[in-house]
Amino acid sequence: MKKLINAPDDVVLDALQGVQAAYPDRVRVNYEPRYVVRADAPVSGKVGLVSGGGSGHEPMHGGFVGPGMLDAACPGEVFTSPTPDQMQAATQAVSGGAGVLHIVKNYTGDVMNFDMAADLTRADGVEVESVVTNDDVAVEDSLYTAGRRGVGITVILEKICGGAAEDRRSLQEVAELGRRVNANGRSMGMALTPCITPGSGQPSFELADDEVEIGIGIHGEPGRFREKIGPASQIAERLLTPIVEDLPFSSGDRVLAFVNGMGGTPEIELYVLYNEVGKLLHERGVQIERNLIGSYITSLEMQGCSITLLKLDEEMTRYWDAPVNTPGLRWGV
Amino acid sequence: MKKLINAPDDVVLDALQGVQAAYPDRVRVNYEPRYVVRADAPVSGKVGLVSGGGSGHEPMHGGFVGPGMLDAACPGEVFTSPTPDQMQAATQAVSGGAGVLHIVKNYTGDVMNFDMAADLTRADGVEVESVVTNDDVAVEDSLYTAGRRGVGITVILEKICGGAAEDRRSLQEVAELGRRVNANGRSMGMALTPCITPGSGQPSFELADDEVEIGIGIHGEPGRFREKIGPASQIAERLLTPIVEDLPFSSGDRVLAFVNGMGGTPEIELYVLYNEVGKLLHERGVQIERNLIGSYITSLEMQGCSITLLKLDEEMTRYWDAPVNTPGLRWGV
Repeated sequence: MKKLINAPDDVVLDALQGVQAAYPDRVRVNYEPRYVVRADAPVSGKVGLVSGGGSGHEPMHGGFVGPGMLDAACPGEVFTSPTPDQMQAATQAVSGGAGVLHIVKNYTGDVMNFDMAADLTRADGVEVESVVTNDDVAVEDSLYTAGRRGVGITVILEKICGGAAEDRRSLQEVAELGRRVNANGRSMGMALTPCITPGSGQPSFELADDEVEIGIGIHGEPGRFREKIGPASQIAERLLTPIVEDLPFSSGDRVLAFVNGMGGTPEIELYVLYNEVGKLLHERGVQIERNLIGSYITSLEMQGCSITLLKLDEEMTRYWDAPVNTPGLRWGV
Repeated sequence: MKKLINAPDDVVLDALQGVQAAYPDRVRVNYEPRYVVRADAPVSGKVGLVSGGGSGHEPMHGGFVGPGMLDAACPGEVFTSPTPDQMQAATQAVSGGAGVLHIVKNYTGDVMNFDMAADLTRADGVEVESVVTNDDVAVEDSLYTAGRRGVGITVILEKICGGAAEDRRSLQEVAELGRRVNANGRSMGMALTPCITPGSGQPSFELADDEVEIGIGIHGEPGRFREKIGPASQIAERLLTPIVEDLPFSSGDRVLAFVNGMGGTPEIELYVLYNEVGKLLHERGVQIERNLIGSYITSLEMQGCSITLLKLDEEMTRYWDAPVNTPGLRWGV
């Protein structure tokens, strides 16, 4: 295992110290328990947005803390759920009187711990709602999940709900919008290579030199099938067809298309893939109105990609376009 | 070789089509000869900025085309210099009457071809200046270079000169500023793994399972030495000491610190490294005033990092902070 780390047990703490050193004006890192929070939290009268999950998926979620997106993010150890006390403390830290929304990817540990944190925080008199994302069409049930896994739509949802919260929409409105984004979003991923968690030192799975896994999860959970690697056009088709047919996305739909790198994927390959995605959607009469291309929800150094489509409505588009100022996504400011 | 591509010969063209499909409102891709140019070029009365180089280093340079940064970028094949006709056509396309600045990394092919393009364009009546970057302290002379290689400072220089050009500074002023940035910038990189160019299908070099190469070039050119991998604190020290001692950077200096991923490096590791860089600079009394953390000058899927320091003055800081709107760097708009 070769990594730019000091010791496997210190990775998350060292990286959090790096985040604090990098953006002292924008975020504050709380170490006991661990969460990253907007420097100006709590924002009075604004719904607070809290997300979190295992580390190793950066910039998600800590890189999305800032005006126009998350108020706080709770990092677990690598590929490990954060604990309820982190979530509870983060929720209290961002509570500005208008309630707090938990944005939770559908993994058993995350869901259970956020539920517990919500109960604890409600007992303290803070109104808490939750949105659970489950956009991965690859498989029903998985290694760490009952039902579908939550993946790429989480990034998009955090941005759109962040815009709505900044616009001082109510907790019920922001939660309803988040559920609509999840309901209209679908994703699927694939891997060229596994990744190695610092703790294990071993690849998360094995793939032959000419083989890819279609439908992979962001922790290396099994996908739908393996096959010999084909051209990017074939990979795009393998991911896009199940996505499009699941919602389904239909001719005339306007979408946000998100082509995501898994962490070790060269950017030039993401543009090759985006080009194929564009051609396939054009053939189906689906119109790309917005896009996001880059590595935003990753699996350490895994090579591969995922595609997320969101069927847009006017409100989603408006809040997607709204200003955001985070380390990971920034525009309008 | 496993890559998200259609065919090795088509990678650059396919990716350019992806760029055109992604940002039709912001950039235009010219295919014969190949360059990426601001959609609104030429901008009347503004110095035009043109850069370019081999592909495989994305987002550099095509991802830095847009208001506040480059007017055009010429992509060569992977790790191969673009040709003079590309540079000449791009220069003419961005000529708005105030002259054009070529930003050239110090590789023999790039320098020779940009020189030729400058001569050809001058013959057409366009005033052309050049800035050559050579910030890599690792080695004198290299596989494709006489003198030092141009690396990370190029990204910073393109941003700072872009701000100055947007501010309608003259060609001489922008060129002088660019030379000052290069003169005050130093970099060094390292690799955990090689990369594989699509054309060769073979790793650019071999490294043992527990070995790193310190001082690597962005095309896998040999560095200073190899050693067994140590902790991130040691890697930071290996890169930072030669950088600091070369200029030298001294106590009281205010710097921009750029921690760059080589393309296959997880973001969490860049923050671990940034934390170590911050500690080492703090010990030396060097103050980080600005930073940039991410994968901006890459070598396909190579795992590793580079560090760039720029000793800032007031003018550099002002133009670094100025608005920029490119796919790769965006703020203030």
